[in-house]
Amino acid sequence: MALTWQERGLKKRESTLAKIPIEWRLPEPIPSAEAQKDVTGPYVQQFLSAREIEITESDAVKITENTTTGKWTATEVVTAFCHRAALAHQLTNCLHEIFFDQAIEHAKNLDSAFAAGNGPTGPLHGLPVSFKDQFHVKGVETTMGYVGWINTFEGVKGTGKEKNVESELVREAKALGGIPFCKTSLPHTVMSGVTGNNIVGLTLNPSNRLVSCGGSSGGEGALISMRGSPIGFGTDIGGSIRIPSGLNGLYGIRPSFGRLPYVGAANSMPGQNSIPSVCGPMATSIGSLRLMMQSILSQQPWLHDPAVVNMPWREAEFAQVPADGKLTFGLLFSDGVVNPQPAVKRAFEKVVQVITSMGHELIEWDPPSHKTAVAFAFESYTADGGLDIWHHTGLSGEPPPPFVGELYYGDDGKTKAPKTVDQIWDTNVRLRQYQKEYMDYWNRTAKLTKSGRPVDAILTPVSAVAAFTFDKQIPIGYTPWVNTLDYTSGVFPVTKVDKDIDVRDTNYQPISDEDKERWEQYDPELEHGTPVGMQLVGRRFQEERIICLVELISGALATK
Amino acid sequence: MALTWQERGLKKRESTLAKIPIEWRLPEPIPSAEAQKDVTGPYVQQFLSAREIEITESDAVKITENTTTGKWTATEVVTAFCHRAALAHQLTNCLHEIFFDQAIEHAKNLDSAFAAGNGPTGPLHGLPVSFKDQFHVKGVETTMGYVGWINTFEGVKGTGKEKNVESELVREAKALGGIPFCKTSLPHTVMSGVTGNNIVGLTLNPSNRLVSCGGSSGGEGALISMRGSPIGFGTDIGGSIRIPSGLNGLYGIRPSFGRLPYVGAANSMPGQNSIPSVCGPMATSIGSLRLMMQSILSQQPWLHDPAVVNMPWREAEFAQVPADGKLTFGLLFSDGVVNPQPAVKRAFEKVVQVITSMGHELIEWDPPSHKTAVAFAFESYTADGGLDIWHHTGLSGEPPPPFVGELYYGDDGKTKAPKTVDQIWDTNVRLRQYQKEYMDYWNRTAKLTKSGRPVDAILTPVSAVAAFTFDKQIPIGYTPWVNTLDYTSGVFPVTKVDKDIDVRDTNYQPISDEDKERWEQYDPELEHGTPVGMQLVGRRFQEERIICLVELISGALATK
Repeated sequence: MALTWQERGLKKRESTLAKIPIEWRLPEPIPSAEAQKDVTGPYVQQFLSAREIEITESDAVKITENTTTGKWTATEVVTAFCHRAALAHQLTNCLHEIFFDQAIEHAKNLDSAFAAGNGPTGPLHGLPVSFKDQFHVKGVETTMGYVGWINTFEGVKGTGKEKNVESELVREAKALGGIPFCKTSLPHTVMSGVTGNNIVGLTLNPSNRLVSCGGSSGGEGALISMRGSPIGFGTDIGGSIRIPSGLNGLYGIRPSFGRLPYVGAANSMPGQNSIPSVCGPMATSIGSLRLMMQSILSQQPWLHDPAVVNMPWREAEFAQVPADGKLTFGLLFSDGVVNPQPAVKRAFEKVVQVITSMGHELIEWDPPSHKTAVAFAFESYTADGGLDIWHHTGLSGEPPPPFVGELYYGDDGKTKAPKTVDQIWDTNVRLRQYQKEYMDYWNRTAKLTKSGRPVDAILTPVSAVAAFTFDKQIPIGYTPWVNTLDYTSGVFPVTKVDKDIDVRDTNYQPISDEDKERWEQYDPELEHGTPVGMQLVGRRFQEERIICLVELISGALATK
Repeated sequence: MALTWQERGLKKRESTLAKIPIEWRLPEPIPSAEAQKDVTGPYVQQFLSAREIEITESDAVKITENTTTGKWTATEVVTAFCHRAALAHQLTNCLHEIFFDQAIEHAKNLDSAFAAGNGPTGPLHGLPVSFKDQFHVKGVETTMGYVGWINTFEGVKGTGKEKNVESELVREAKALGGIPFCKTSLPHTVMSGVTGNNIVGLTLNPSNRLVSCGGSSGGEGALISMRGSPIGFGTDIGGSIRIPSGLNGLYGIRPSFGRLPYVGAANSMPGQNSIPSVCGPMATSIGSLRLMMQSILSQQPWLHDPAVVNMPWREAEFAQVPADGKLTFGLLFSDGVVNPQPAVKRAFEKVVQVITSMGHELIEWDPPSHKTAVAFAFESYTADGGLDIWHHTGLSGEPPPPFVGELYYGDDGKTKAPKTVDQIWDTNVRLRQYQKEYMDYWNRTAKLTKSGRPVDAILTPVSAVAAFTFDKQIPIGYTPWVNTLDYTSGVFPVTKVDKDIDVRDTNYQPISDEDKERWEQYDPELEHGTPVGMQLVGRRFQEERIICLVELISGALATK
């Protein structure tokens, strides 16, 4: 008898868990989230050797300094991260695919080549790299969270491509000496800020397992936050790199479309090109993001992905602060729908203070409506009326993730009709007009700054809330506008929720029904310890500049 | 009583002609095309002073050398070109909008500023620049060839935008010191290789008025070929810059989408973003194209057009020949549907010979099917089933240009249905796969070349025919594949049809029905004197490299 989707999901989940060696299994019973909210730092360290801790708590920059000079072997580095990733998965449910054997074998080959006098394979020699489960790695399955994709290639049976395809980004990471070792969880459909699916279940926030790690690149967020991976790749069509980076205390970058290679990866609605998804790295330090961006671009991805533009890393032109050292930041505190809650507000103000103390200028950011920008994004996500997501959930009969299905229903409760070609083209025209208006606004800020130059970057929260439980969706107003504008955004950690400081403001006057609801839900006790990040948003194709500015600000934050 | 579309078109045509000063009118009767095929060179020179000839037969490089140093005034330069453009229009029907007064006034202002000690306005100081009638110039109407657009803004009445909007490219050209002075003809709908519409009628090829100047940027082709403008801008969605450049003996470049600013210009199907239209310059020398590209990019168009990528002119990296001086060219002689006719074949062989004599390598170009590429292009052009073109022709009741309407009818004689969103998204996915296959093929040529590097550029004809009469469409297989791949293509002049050399091959074996028909139509006597160009095609965003290679080859051609 055919298995139900529940059974098929469970079977896959168990087969993944079974790939964890016995010696890396946690003693049963694994404590509940209530019993052990925070499993980062000291908690997970108890299962690791001092050497493993040293390795896994190094960032990608330090790791590659050691591996490329032969101080550390690729094998010991990869093995340590495999161990810690195994622990992370048992505690937070962050992995879809485990291929530690393949990775350790790969590491041994790199070590042999190094020992034979060939030197490092590349700047990422021996660096473990994790991938959101949209990327194909040879020898490994990709389900993208869909039960119906198990034992198929992107939902199609018998193509001969199963476990036999490698996404361009994976190929390039390997060519640079990087070692893929696991693939991380995401909500199937990739259209949710909550990471969970019918295979692996919910992925927990390692700093606070009572709340979500965010999404859709939530597995990366949880894994890297656990130091189970030094660096990994997520994707972002509405905040999916930035939200989990923020909620897990990480650095992440959402590059502009066409900067990094996405070709050969699975995706939802892959033909939707009005507001396309992009891929980008998430890591434990800003230096790691810089290293990864530089390294990938050194592979000339524009010769291998038709969507990538011929644009090398531009250190001299863009990765440096202007000669006079004067910068201006636009401040965008609220999306006007849900105001930042106490810890987010405090984080925002902390960064403002740091920027001020560095002598930079701040102006209020008062652009064309972000509500319009967010509406454009949702118009594009739902343009097919759900044909794509219903097709892929229909392969197994599973339901879509919570809150996702409803995006595709109209106010009348019926499935939305797919848009017609003239509606799509009309959206594209209006979208370009909006982008132009926003650009003109940005240019006009030159009249408001002391330097006479336009604003360098916008400081804005990643989300109004610092944490949210699994029965809720993240309020979404702070991230999709960046996708609508195809801007570069870098996320960096600022603080953690502190129940003693971030108390509920009982006199607060909500600005909307949703704001009121979120205010009522705010629970400092529950959220205590959850990381809070901020984003710095730059113009299109300003990855170098944004990394430079995040380095500047987080360097200053670190000294506070 | 309301005017018919014929009457409205005629009225507009007459009002344009009336803007030509009496002293620049040609003596009546203007000779027929039969009586005077070639109106370039000596024929048009008889109506000009020696000084006017000196100025108008200088290229944009020489003109700006003289204007930016004060040797020539902007006023005398612009006036000379206005005069010659007026003659060109009377002989070839190449203009839609004449605004000589406005241009001369503009030139006087630049001269005053120069005389006041302000120096040149920019690198294009005093350079007349013509624009295809998709670009808006303040004070001037834009009809894009549609009768229904007369006295409207892009077909809409009473917007307040009429004659009051300036396209970004026009703004930048002016900021650089360039002087718009006329706008040129195109087929309404912009979807034809024949330039003609119900306002201005047919635009003739100045070297051979019995045949078409090509299209859709045919007015630019005819005007610049007449030396009525030193440089102008066309647009290209399937060959519309390259075909008229080739047929009129000009240099033209089709940049990749996102290199030059198109924002704020009128277009057909402006929301169609699968295979988008691009704008690019056409001129009398390759140096002029280099000057224009460099100048426009110095304006940082990426800060003003959301579709433009942040990519300055990259002289050092891309605009130079490799250090070892060794290049490889891929040779693509035929599109496999209509073989190049005698003069085109001779031009191709001439370039091959020149490349060989320079010591460069040549390999056969054997890529993924170009028929597939051309089919993708037509799939995108017609995705709305003609909604856009029927709307705009419907404003006046006029018919579309010959051969265009039928693109939107199926084999059953009925109007094609607009595509559904899933069809469009499916096309986008297959398109990306095709682009990737093509890219991989290009990469693999590294295994075939002596240098071990992939092919530098592809040499291929612009069209199978050197000329075609007004009752025919150009065979289209040689250009839209470049749009499908978003490659950079540069066109350069090679030769002219010579009835004594390019004789009919009576033993020719046609490769298709269309090839047979074209072969039967071939008439060396009729085509005699028509220019023949070739294109060099480079990868995406290789404008610098292609201009460099065209310079190299046309420099060598000039010495033969």
